[in-house]
Amino acid sequence: MSENTNKVGKRKKNRYPATDYERIFHPRTLAILGVSAEEGGVGFGTGMLKSIMAMGFEGKIFPVNPKGGNISGLEIYKRVEDIPEKVDFAIIAVAARWVPASLEACLKIGVAGAEILSSGFSELGTAEGRELEKQIQEIAARGIRVVGPNCFGIYCPASGLTMLPGPDLSRQSGPVAFLAQSGGMSIDFAHTGKWLGVRFSKMVSFGNGADLREAELLNHLARDPETKVISMYIEGIKDGDAFFREIKAAASKKPVIVFKGGLSHAGARSVASHTASMGGSRVIWQSILKQAGAIQVNDTEELAQVNLAFSLLPHRSFKSISVTGGGGAIGVTACDTAEKYGMDIPSLYPELQARIENVLPRPGSSAINPIDVANPFVGPEVLKEALLAAAQDDRIELQIIVSLLFHYKTIARMFGKPVSEVAPYRELAQAVRDVVDQTGKPVIAVLPNVKKGLDDMDITELIALTRQEYMNHGIPVFDELHDAVRAIAHMNTYYGRRKHEKR
Amino acid sequence: MSENTNKVGKRKKNRYPATDYERIFHPRTLAILGVSAEEGGVGFGTGMLKSIMAMGFEGKIFPVNPKGGNISGLEIYKRVEDIPEKVDFAIIAVAARWVPASLEACLKIGVAGAEILSSGFSELGTAEGRELEKQIQEIAARGIRVVGPNCFGIYCPASGLTMLPGPDLSRQSGPVAFLAQSGGMSIDFAHTGKWLGVRFSKMVSFGNGADLREAELLNHLARDPETKVISMYIEGIKDGDAFFREIKAAASKKPVIVFKGGLSHAGARSVASHTASMGGSRVIWQSILKQAGAIQVNDTEELAQVNLAFSLLPHRSFKSISVTGGGGAIGVTACDTAEKYGMDIPSLYPELQARIENVLPRPGSSAINPIDVANPFVGPEVLKEALLAAAQDDRIELQIIVSLLFHYKTIARMFGKPVSEVAPYRELAQAVRDVVDQTGKPVIAVLPNVKKGLDDMDITELIALTRQEYMNHGIPVFDELHDAVRAIAHMNTYYGRRKHEKR
Repeated sequence: MSENTNKVGKRKKNRYPATDYERIFHPRTLAILGVSAEEGGVGFGTGMLKSIMAMGFEGKIFPVNPKGGNISGLEIYKRVEDIPEKVDFAIIAVAARWVPASLEACLKIGVAGAEILSSGFSELGTAEGRELEKQIQEIAARGIRVVGPNCFGIYCPASGLTMLPGPDLSRQSGPVAFLAQSGGMSIDFAHTGKWLGVRFSKMVSFGNGADLREAELLNHLARDPETKVISMYIEGIKDGDAFFREIKAAASKKPVIVFKGGLSHAGARSVASHTASMGGSRVIWQSILKQAGAIQVNDTEELAQVNLAFSLLPHRSFKSISVTGGGGAIGVTACDTAEKYGMDIPSLYPELQARIENVLPRPGSSAINPIDVANPFVGPEVLKEALLAAAQDDRIELQIIVSLLFHYKTIARMFGKPVSEVAPYRELAQAVRDVVDQTGKPVIAVLPNVKKGLDDMDITELIALTRQEYMNHGIPVFDELHDAVRAIAHMNTYYGRRKHEKR
Repeated sequence: MSENTNKVGKRKKNRYPATDYERIFHPRTLAILGVSAEEGGVGFGTGMLKSIMAMGFEGKIFPVNPKGGNISGLEIYKRVEDIPEKVDFAIIAVAARWVPASLEACLKIGVAGAEILSSGFSELGTAEGRELEKQIQEIAARGIRVVGPNCFGIYCPASGLTMLPGPDLSRQSGPVAFLAQSGGMSIDFAHTGKWLGVRFSKMVSFGNGADLREAELLNHLARDPETKVISMYIEGIKDGDAFFREIKAAASKKPVIVFKGGLSHAGARSVASHTASMGGSRVIWQSILKQAGAIQVNDTEELAQVNLAFSLLPHRSFKSISVTGGGGAIGVTACDTAEKYGMDIPSLYPELQARIENVLPRPGSSAINPIDVANPFVGPEVLKEALLAAAQDDRIELQIIVSLLFHYKTIARMFGKPVSEVAPYRELAQAVRDVVDQTGKPVIAVLPNVKKGLDDMDITELIALTRQEYMNHGIPVFDELHDAVRAIAHMNTYYGRRKHEKR
């Protein structure tokens, strides 16, 4: 049934336990152990129950609490064993000392996997905590896969599983899988992805990683047809050799993007208190990731931006680009940024420059490339013509359009209308989509905003509206030109290396 | 009367013409040449008149147009010579071919300086354009200082002068002066400064820089008591020796922050078409700026952030810091970022850790430093106690507090209230202000936001509200921890170097 089960027979060696990932990521039946028996309870179990209901999970949910009762219109079962159906997946949110017994009960009734949200294990650094975690590992080894403990769980938009606290994550599936020990890093990325346009196949915050963790999950995701891009935030790893083997294998099949935390001396100390694993030195990690063919990013913003580029752009490198925008300094900045990241902004062929000059306002415009449209109110039809013409230059592989929409506030004020009525953002997004369709060359939109104060919330909303419009057309949007160019540079590194390897 | 006039006598050599900067930056009487004689005109002159009125300029405005008439309740004078009062400053927005005669007329009636918004001069690259610009220079040399042509003009919050299109810039004065050829770069920074909290003494976009430009303006700003920090965006310079001499002299008195554009090959080409001056190579510029003791930044965001730090923090370096926030990955990230920029996050003295542990929730918190408050809903009074305690560690020179206010959306949803009612942002800002007052050590606030979509505009507004609250208390706010740490690193470079030089 699951992709993993099907392939187990074909592998030369069963390195990992047979695991029914289908029942774990797409459960039809779900037990939640540790909901509150009283109305108004606010524990993790109750929170997760409400979040999963808010997400519109389509399967059956079986809440469990020894006191029984009802919650959110569902009967609470006193024991896991009382649940009248086969249970695919369990969410365990009971106190640490009750976790082993709860997991044992899940194993007994044939649950495929469980996420343990509870904390109070090895991360405490106590003998008790370590002992409890060891018990989890022993039970898991007898046939139930465990995510956690001390984690925020699994987010899978297709099935409606969500991680803590997560009642408002996107239900749209997409190409990106994300792995992290840190629950906070995971839920933050899930939210950032929602508005930025990064869509996920699945996200796993595995906390202490007592059972399922980085190497084995990488092995699965490399073969997962729903996943086209793998991303991870790593603090420490358990088995360096296994990790290197799996990340290298995964990166040979799909892009693997890594944000490594805990690279500093003090960071490693902080990692130890956060997830009970060791960090490592900056240089070693850079070298390991490069050898593995993975892409290393340096912060959460870069992580999100690079995933956006890999998600929405064709799977190739882009060495020569055009940049179109209003205002000369944009052109200068574009050239500087492109050169810094190893890209060219070639002067367009003269006949194309002439064609673009024909439609641009004078004076102050330039059709050379960067294409300076001289004022920020140049209409979508003019921008479309400029982009269509620039795409005729056979060297141009990707186009960037920078729109300073905040300037429309001046027009809005002049005509006494809302800025979202005077800025042609729908037409702009449609024009860009048309250009991509007609030329077959991708376009990236950049929407800077210098007006982010309380007086200008209408501008902030206009930018958000425009971003959504572009997202609906499948066009990636970045806040700043620099972010876009840096993200493309990572694609160039990845696909450039693969091309080289194939020779 | 002006600061410059007073000091001219003391200088050994009159390197620059005597200039009444007081009448230029703080004019009491202002002529605007080139307003539209018809109602509803939209030229630069009319736009500037309306913007200056919207800014609440307190002096007298004399619009000029050969056709006469009235505009916005003001009499239009047919000739500059008809204006019945002494005119301090003139704004010239007539067609390029009429600019020399207009400027000559201003000189004749004793105007101290003029900004020429009109384009059509050397930036065209034509013999005509160059000739017209030469005429401007010749008239200027006979006793009127010129800003421009092909510029957006001067912004001076104290006097109400504003640059194109600028009807909505801040009237609050502050320590930062900004110079740029590029008008777009200038007005964008003015807007960014408004919401970020960077306040300006004066801003000059000098376009082609026919008369007043970088070296001479640096010389003035170094002596200007209103200016504590000098910032510039440079594309090209006219006289390298003069520039180096003046920037070095200025940087020995106050911080000078430079964003150099046109560092790339293609960028230099783009500079040539933008402002008719030459760029230069990356390495040469880095070396020149370092030798001069100036701070080099790489993009507009960094420019704004560094100015914010220099504006609001004590004038010194900060090597050891504390970081307080909720969520373990923040601590890891803080350590990594601090180390990258050469700062320490020392483990606090044990007795201070114990004091902080006393008030933090368990489990999951850490009082070592970074101080992990374990959940984002820890109240202002707890955060205040943690910051007060950490400040008792004599090694800590600056504190950073990271608040993940977006999490309050969960609480707001639970209680069915607006997020701005459930998030204690006023109390938070007040608590931080109290800590600074009681400890004498500065605190920086960081307000990340992972919820920027259309569904979460209330969060975006909450962040803007909180930023304003902090701004009112004089506390600098950054979007991301990385931005804050990088800005402090620039302060460390500047003040570290000065300390070294003084020995």
